[in-house]
Amino acid sequence: MSNARGALFDPVFGGAAVAAEVSDQAWVTALLEVEAALSRAASTVGLVSAAHAATVTTVAAALGAPAGLDIADLGRKSAAGGNPVIPLVRILRAACAAEGVPASAVHVGATSQDVMDSALMLLAHRAGHIVLADLRAAANAGAELARAHRATPMVARTLGQQALPTTFGALAVSWFTGLDDAATQLERALCALPGQFGGAAGTLAAVHPHGLEMADALADELGLARQVAPWHTTRTPVAALASALGVAAGAVAKPATDITAMASTEFGEVAEDAPGGSSAMPHKQNPVAAITARAAARRAPGLVSTVLSSMDHEFARAAGAWHAEWETVTDLLRLAGGAAHQLASSLGGLHVHADAMARNLDITGGLILAERVTGALSTHTDSAREIVTAAAASGVPLDRAPEITAYLSADELRDLLDPSNYLGHAVDLVDRALSSRPAPASRPARTPGGPA
Amino acid sequence: MSNARGALFDPVFGGAAVAAEVSDQAWVTALLEVEAALSRAASTVGLVSAAHAATVTTVAAALGAPAGLDIADLGRKSAAGGNPVIPLVRILRAACAAEGVPASAVHVGATSQDVMDSALMLLAHRAGHIVLADLRAAANAGAELARAHRATPMVARTLGQQALPTTFGALAVSWFTGLDDAATQLERALCALPGQFGGAAGTLAAVHPHGLEMADALADELGLARQVAPWHTTRTPVAALASALGVAAGAVAKPATDITAMASTEFGEVAEDAPGGSSAMPHKQNPVAAITARAAARRAPGLVSTVLSSMDHEFARAAGAWHAEWETVTDLLRLAGGAAHQLASSLGGLHVHADAMARNLDITGGLILAERVTGALSTHTDSAREIVTAAAASGVPLDRAPEITAYLSADELRDLLDPSNYLGHAVDLVDRALSSRPAPASRPARTPGGPA
Amino acid sequence: MSNARGALFDPVFGGAAVAAEVSDQAWVTALLEVEAALSRAASTVGLVSAAHAATVTTVAAALGAPAGLDIADLGRKSAAGGNPVIPLVRILRAACAAEGVPASAVHVGATSQDVMDSALMLLAHRAGHIVLADLRAAANAGAELARAHRATPMVARTLGQQALPTTFGALAVSWFTGLDDAATQLERALCALPGQFGGAAGTLAAVHPHGLEMADALADELGLARQVAPWHTTRTPVAALASALGVAAGAVAKPATDITAMASTEFGEVAEDAPGGSSAMPHKQNPVAAITARAAARRAPGLVSTVLSSMDHEFARAAGAWHAEWETVTDLLRLAGGAAHQLASSLGGLHVHADAMARNLDITGGLILAERVTGALSTHTDSAREIVTAAAASGVPLDRAPEITAYLSADELRDLLDPSNYLGHAVDLVDRALSSRPAPASRPARTPGGPA
Amino acid sequence: MSNARGALFDPVFGGAAVAAEVSDQAWVTALLEVEAALSRAASTVGLVSAAHAATVTTVAAALGAPAGLDIADLGRKSAAGGNPVIPLVRILRAACAAEGVPASAVHVGATSQDVMDSALMLLAHRAGHIVLADLRAAANAGAELARAHRATPMVARTLGQQALPTTFGALAVSWFTGLDDAATQLERALCALPGQFGGAAGTLAAVHPHGLEMADALADELGLARQVAPWHTTRTPVAALASALGVAAGAVAKPATDITAMASTEFGEVAEDAPGGSSAMPHKQNPVAAITARAAARRAPGLVSTVLSSMDHEFARAAGAWHAEWETVTDLLRLAGGAAHQLASSLGGLHVHADAMARNLDITGGLILAERVTGALSTHTDSAREIVTAAAASGVPLDRAPEITAYLSADELRDLLDPSNYLGHAVDLVDRALSSRPAPASRPARTPGGPA
Repeated sequence: MSNARGALFDPVFGGAAVAAEVSDQAWVTALLEVEAALSRAASTVGLVSAAHAATVTTVAAALGAPAGLDIADLGRKSAAGGNPVIPLVRILRAACAAEGVPASAVHVGATSQDVMDSALMLLAHRAGHIVLADLRAAANAGAELARAHRATPMVARTLGQQALPTTFGALAVSWFTGLDDAATQLERALCALPGQFGGAAGTLAAVHPHGLEMADALADELGLARQVAPWHTTRTPVAALASALGVAAGAVAKPATDITAMASTEFGEVAEDAPGGSSAMPHKQNPVAAITARAAARRAPGLVSTVLSSMDHEFARAAGAWHAEWETVTDLLRLAGGAAHQLASSLGGLHVHADAMARNLDITGGLILAERVTGALSTHTDSAREIVTAAAASGVPLDRAPEITAYLSADELRDLLDPSNYLGHAVDLVDRALSSRPAPASRPARTPGGPA
Repeated sequence: MSNARGALFDPVFGGAAVAAEVSDQAWVTALLEVEAALSRAASTVGLVSAAHAATVTTVAAALGAPAGLDIADLGRKSAAGGNPVIPLVRILRAACAAEGVPASAVHVGATSQDVMDSALMLLAHRAGHIVLADLRAAANAGAELARAHRATPMVARTLGQQALPTTFGALAVSWFTGLDDAATQLERALCALPGQFGGAAGTLAAVHPHGLEMADALADELGLARQVAPWHTTRTPVAALASALGVAAGAVAKPATDITAMASTEFGEVAEDAPGGSSAMPHKQNPVAAITARAAARRAPGLVSTVLSSMDHEFARAAGAWHAEWETVTDLLRLAGGAAHQLASSLGGLHVHADAMARNLDITGGLILAERVTGALSTHTDSAREIVTAAAASGVPLDRAPEITAYLSADELRDLLDPSNYLGHAVDLVDRALSSRPAPASRPARTPGGPA
Repeated sequence: MSNARGALFDPVFGGAAVAAEVSDQAWVTALLEVEAALSRAASTVGLVSAAHAATVTTVAAALGAPAGLDIADLGRKSAAGGNPVIPLVRILRAACAAEGVPASAVHVGATSQDVMDSALMLLAHRAGHIVLADLRAAANAGAELARAHRATPMVARTLGQQALPTTFGALAVSWFTGLDDAATQLERALCALPGQFGGAAGTLAAVHPHGLEMADALADELGLARQVAPWHTTRTPVAALASALGVAAGAVAKPATDITAMASTEFGEVAEDAPGGSSAMPHKQNPVAAITARAAARRAPGLVSTVLSSMDHEFARAAGAWHAEWETVTDLLRLAGGAAHQLASSLGGLHVHADAMARNLDITGGLILAERVTGALSTHTDSAREIVTAAAASGVPLDRAPEITAYLSADELRDLLDPSNYLGHAVDLVDRALSSRPAPASRPARTPGGPA
Repeated sequence: MSNARGALFDPVFGGAAVAAEVSDQAWVTALLEVEAALSRAASTVGLVSAAHAATVTTVAAALGAPAGLDIADLGRKSAAGGNPVIPLVRILRAACAAEGVPASAVHVGATSQDVMDSALMLLAHRAGHIVLADLRAAANAGAELARAHRATPMVARTLGQQALPTTFGALAVSWFTGLDDAATQLERALCALPGQFGGAAGTLAAVHPHGLEMADALADELGLARQVAPWHTTRTPVAALASALGVAAGAVAKPATDITAMASTEFGEVAEDAPGGSSAMPHKQNPVAAITARAAARRAPGLVSTVLSSMDHEFARAAGAWHAEWETVTDLLRLAGGAAHQLASSLGGLHVHADAMARNLDITGGLILAERVTGALSTHTDSAREIVTAAAASGVPLDRAPEITAYLSADELRDLLDPSNYLGHAVDLVDRALSSRPAPASRPARTPGGPA
């Protein structure tokens, strides 16, 4: 029976678009792109003829196209050596030989890890930019909500309890600032993803004296950053990428958690545009996008810890720590991306029920303004705090407690107990946060690929 | 482009056999098996006719066979409600309707989570027994090595340094006892996996007063343990399973790490039967099975933490914590299983180089017996420890240090410095550990399925 | 400035009692208890005189008493060798020498890891039984709530939305069954904690031929399980303990999360007996015990992953993986214990507001009984589901929708819409779960210690 | 019995210096520094008199000095409200009242989280700069080794097997480039740590219209970055800090792992300046600094996952996710710092045994140069690869295999088999990496504190 995974659950977790960039097929395509780029880089230093490099590029592109080769067979042949590059190079060399290209023009000076690492960086670069776009879409939707509802009163809740009035815009600030911050961190990590070229043991001996030049050429061909030195066992670029994806997932989890609570029957403050139904319960309006965003986000931190705990690559190639990265990094891309995608969808169509927000502001009969009433009362009596606390405890509305009305008039109390009069800097903070948003780097995403 | 994953890397990480039991297809099959079992369970309490239940079983089996339905389409339709059961029930009901079975005979009294959870338990039961078999195969291979090499001298290494003589058998004891222990823990968790049946909100209201009886019947049909009560948000069975898989992965990592080091060029004490080669370096003999076992094992702990941190299922169905379990649990099965499989392969064909072990015992020129020489010397002088330490520091072999030969004869020293005379209880411990091995539960794995 | 930690935050996270059992002082006491037990075990096989063993026991007890030695100084001296046993043995031997006991009567045949591991097992055994007692107290309190409220109607919530009626007792079932299950798993792990005795390299060479007998005697002296063989690098007992603590933390998180939500202003269904206040907001009633239980529980899964990922102990003593366990395991004990303690406190004094539960049942105007009304209507018309869905969408109460009242009488609708008439098996499930509770093992916790 | 922790194990894991900055005492001091800064910030906007602010500063400094207050008592009183700020403000206000300062001059407009978060940022800033200094010390030591041994031949090992010659300097490049990269990431996170000021619910209502100005003043007083808006539930700064510490720990683990292996008896290539001994085994030379660096580093990833999985702070103050950060972040600082400290110590005094490196280069009898011999042979015959592989398999030294000597002269072979002639770009890469090292930010660490 087929091992295939991805078709059933990726759409649920929002990861379908990212998943296509980290699929088995995407891996094979990227590995072959790296091999082609290697031959072209070798031709820049004269180790391979330009004609041969062009043929390798053509052959690799054909093999790397969908159905270009039998991936299941390649997988089975990969087991013996522990990675797919060894059998793939055999396939590529055979196909090139049929076009008159000698074996020496393929995989020039490279080790399997050069090709695997560079391919993983390519996948990460491409998938990562999809994640980044969804993070930005979510942040923009959050910012738009903040702008539209900068002054819409709602209750602020602390430790699960109603606390004070705020605005929905101020809550949305806590959403988009986190998303913006996560996007900045991710973009930085993506820009730093390097090409890998070290040869069998990191000395580039097989292509000496052209090694450093060829390494730079390879990175340029792939649209990746140039390495300072081979990083076969120096995994900070991978760790920085994984961390940024973990932070992104966390930045998604916060608004998704808020939306799930706000959409609850008791709160009723928001609803998704396309909530999920239930076959048994016709009244259910599940905020499915936020729920599945939370689910995808919850799966990221454990994967980040796997990447971090696999940074102890020994000597020149790690016996296990390296292999542990491959699917872990692509799972992180898929899940952080899915989470961002679902959140962008949730926020982009969010229905905001200002009336429910207003209704919830009234639940406590003014107690959420106790801080304010206490302040006003304290200009009349030193017992302000005790009086208000006693009234709160007794359940008497603050505008009907005799100890309070003894000092404050009905008009004063009406004003004091109007939530919209005690929003503090909520609106200012929305404006400040909106005007402080980081501009995305103007440089477009690099577009790796072969010669035009 | 296809999202499909699994064909390329599962063989590398040893997980191909387990992966087939947790694939997209395996999920669809299991979901339909649960639906069929539900109809049969409903027929036992009279809610569905036996004929209808039989037809549902037949129709479900056809849809659940490979290519029985379009999984990618099912996946896309699953996104709206956040799980595949809602569209799958529509498909099943339509197919049953064509056979004259009413909608009310399908998905009787169930909620999506009943079907998802029961299906996950089915997958875990099947895949888990493959993992268990590979753990036991690895343990048996380790025990066989212990038996065969109970008295083969090798050096014991502590904190990376040669310490004292031991036997290879004693090292193998540290391997198989951990694997046996992990197998016992896993088997216990597998036996406890329960069926799930609670209905829309855990009260089984839709099938009252037949709910409890039907829940037991469902579990029996599926070959799973009976629930005490619906466990929609009580996830200890899932957590116990995940923990046992994490412990299993850790039990694999220990011998795999030892083998990787012992197979290194400098140690040369073991070699795998089918080591991996290198295209560039004809002399390489990489212990690929142990290496990929380590890689798979390293990916388990983060996934266990994901399951444990997702036990906070709120109220009657969790908005995210539940969904986070699905792929995490199946990934754990696949990776722990892959690790065990690769280790069983490595141990099963391990070449043991007793000569290299003997050579390594000689490297220090007797220093690894310093403890023993000190003991013998201390019957002659109170300065025994100082004398031996000074000799060790000076680099003079212990049998040529004048301060030592002043007290101990050449014959005495030859005997004292023979590693095979200072093996302590190494052989006894091998024998004790072999005779203490737990017997596997005699009960065969349950074989869930429909009526014969 | 002092490094000291524990006084400020342990009380917040409920871990004060457990923390005392895993403090610096508790470690020193336990290490010395192990050394004393070693001397007594050696005397049982004749390697040390009974008188000397008794003196070692007395001296060790004095050094292990509070202020018996300078822990900060011991800590500084521990850095050179990487663990505290080396300097501690020097101190103990010096103190014993003053009583006429030779160095050879102390630390007989042992390596540092024998003493560290056995001491950690002692700490885990003691602290673990406190955790267990708190888990059981929480489970008992949950069971008492279930019993008292087996028929108290409340709404069941799925995916954050009101779904159907249930009882508070049924929710409490989901709490105590998880806690009971976690307690069973933890007790099993505690009972299996073994003593450790292997000598310098696991062969017990220094005490040959008395090694196996002495190992059993040591375990008996400490009240720990007997080892089959030294487990210096076979860490399944540690991993099983850590996993059980992780599962326990997760079992706590579920009810703590529910309580936090139910205590929210909008829900108002429960309140803690001693909620936390706010200096600024006199109306706040924070469920602090549940909140801090959640906080402590959230910290467990990452620590479990650390223990699991540190099972790859190489050869006969691991260079790092071993050391990584010490504080991780004691942190897990402290945090799982704190979480259980806070939850037991929260549940033990929980105020249940059945009136608020009833009020919340009314919020939807009967929609949570839509499933039931649909069922009744479907005996009259094939369009039952469409009719009810349309009514739900239009906001018209179900008992006033003309398409419904055309078929169902006011009396019928009153009955159909009464939540207490649609509780399904909620009460049955409470009764079944209460009667299925596991009995705690009758054997009391072992009480390690010296001879009476 | 005391709960105190830290004295026994912090020195073992290298964390003593960092630990002093995150101790109970350090927390109390920082909390009081924040309260003092709050009063001064309030005085800048006219809410508190300058004289009162000065008195608060003096009183807070006295209470925050060692033994300035009873921390255990404060801890016990912190349990009721779930954090230490509530009782600490009572203590501070009482002490200020004795100096004639009204309660209104203390904790102006603040909520507990403002004070806890700002204090945590202070601790992180201070402790983090110690971590940074140790990371840089380790990187500098690694760079110095690279410079000194840029051309010292050693064998490169891949997947545990000898592969090709390289230089020790090239291996050291893989160490210091990772450490430099981690230091850069950490410094960025430290520079971005913001002050926190939002008031009871994030609107700064209690100090309106001075809120934004006062927030900036508070950050300036504390030497922290200015917030854009309150980040009570937007935890990207905390997550970025935790991630950077996790990456740092991973960057330490790599060289520490290499050193542990290179110091093994069989390799013998390096030794620490102050290795740890063994009471039982006088010959042991344990690389304790590297071992404990590995141990500390292994504990970081799980803690990072805890921080990342606690980013889902709901609404305006999280009921648990917030509290979970406190000790997790300080543990991360302590452990990443300890790991860096131990590594700096290990690298700073590393003894490099070039002779052992040369000896190990000879172990395979030239097989590690098989790639090179194959290249040379292939100019003579198309069967080069087959010939060399056969020779390698047969165990005949390459310079004595007839099929090889038929084509290559003894002189040619001597040259081909000299490892120092096949170092590729090893030396170039050392030079390139050394000249590419990032300059630390010239800005000195901010020095928070009161007015001079």
